[in-house]
Amino acid sequence: VTPPLTARAVPGVPEIAPGADLAAAIYEAARSSGIELGPEQVLAIAHKVVSKAEGRLVRLADVVPGARARELAERFGKDPRAVEVVLSEAVEILRAERGVLIARTRHGFVCANAGVDASNAPEGTLVLLPEDPDASARRLRARLVTLLGGEAPAVLVTDSFGRAWRHGQCEIAVGLAGLAPLDDWRGRRDSRGLELRATWIAVADQAAALADLVRAKDSHEPAVVIDGLERYVTPEDGPGAAALVRAPQEDLFP
Amino acid sequence: VTPPLTARAVPGVPEIAPGADLAAAIYEAARSSGIELGPEQVLAIAHKVVSKAEGRLVRLADVVPGARARELAERFGKDPRAVEVVLSEAVEILRAERGVLIARTRHGFVCANAGVDASNAPEGTLVLLPEDPDASARRLRARLVTLLGGEAPAVLVTDSFGRAWRHGQCEIAVGLAGLAPLDDWRGRRDSRGLELRATWIAVADQAAALADLVRAKDSHEPAVVIDGLERYVTPEDGPGAAALVRAPQEDLFP
Repeated sequence: VTPPLTARAVPGVPEIAPGADLAAAIYEAARSSGIELGPEQVLAIAHKVVSKAEGRLVRLADVVPGARARELAERFGKDPRAVEVVLSEAVEILRAERGVLIARTRHGFVCANAGVDASNAPEGTLVLLPEDPDASARRLRARLVTLLGGEAPAVLVTDSFGRAWRHGQCEIAVGLAGLAPLDDWRGRRDSRGLELRATWIAVADQAAALADLVRAKDSHEPAVVIDGLERYVTPEDGPGAAALVRAPQEDLFP
Repeated sequence: VTPPLTARAVPGVPEIAPGADLAAAIYEAARSSGIELGPEQVLAIAHKVVSKAEGRLVRLADVVPGARARELAERFGKDPRAVEVVLSEAVEILRAERGVLIARTRHGFVCANAGVDASNAPEGTLVLLPEDPDASARRLRARLVTLLGGEAPAVLVTDSFGRAWRHGQCEIAVGLAGLAPLDDWRGRRDSRGLELRATWIAVADQAAALADLVRAKDSHEPAVVIDGLERYVTPEDGPGAAALVRAPQEDLFP
């Protein structure tokens, strides 16, 4: 039988400002709530606090919009400075329609507004995705090793993305250290010995999705502790969430 | 604080054949394992056993491939009968490349092979998606009400789909009774009182994803019991997973 799974939000994580020791803040909040952090767990962290701690904030007042940003902003009734920030985070704009810019980010993520977000941000500022979310996850995990005086949980940095063909958003993995991004059953056998040709499980994205179900968007619950995914947790940091990105020229699933 | 979440597979669900009383089989297996089913829970069921119980199986020996199926099969080195079954389940083929047919099913789902699957199926047969997976979920829930002598869990019928732009598959909701498909925060306020413009959570898809993490693909664990989503469970069956399907002409996220 597959082990059961439990997940809970870490209560009491304080507001995170640029330069904050995020790993320590989560570690302290967990300890205060009697939540033990161990090497068999996954610690899912909303990218927004990671970005804030890393200072990945842009003040709109500091932005000078270029011609393209002004043109798009005019078309969509948006703030040209906000559009300029989105363009600067994008390597490609895939669609610009009905007020939404679908962009490919430099990480290879395809999402609305290149991951630039105004919600839960200080007034007049926008939050960007971390520069290198896998590196962020590795740094957070390394810091937890120090704080815990031993092995640390896997760290999963998440963001919520819209999807093609379906309404609503799902949380996905943008950064990863110590969790297998994918579980490849292609070529393995099913319960009847048949080959499971198309089965290639996006473990880290599914773990991100579950973490989203244990925190409310309006509360300060950026961190979720997941138990029951030990079989996907590794001492080494592994390939990271970059392994989940499909190259544009290969974009056909499964 | 958002309530914690737990999920576990129901062990010992027997092999399901056409005409089987699937709700009773899961109910009995849960009871044998001391797992109580209650109205605050979500019962996630892999579509494959739902399809099998409903007789949504096609024997390849009974299929006569048409000209288009023969042509595609030739191009991709596939069984023309299997391709014929995929074409008969599709209302539109979006892409046919590198051996994969990406199709829109009559339910509006966009997925590989129109949801037709050979794994974990009796030899020489293919498993189709349920005719109307929301109706399947409602029937299963109604049957559980009878078996439990009172209110039943929400029922979530799932399948694993590939995604655009990302590797691997995530389990999603194809049928639903008693679970909110979406949680709409658009227009609500975040922790600082700012409007959360793009936040529209695909609750049911995320619940499906989490269920996939508590069952192994090679074991007989088609049913997963989820606790901790009470706030999304409703006595009425609600709009179903059909509400998650984005109309083709609207296909731009979020």
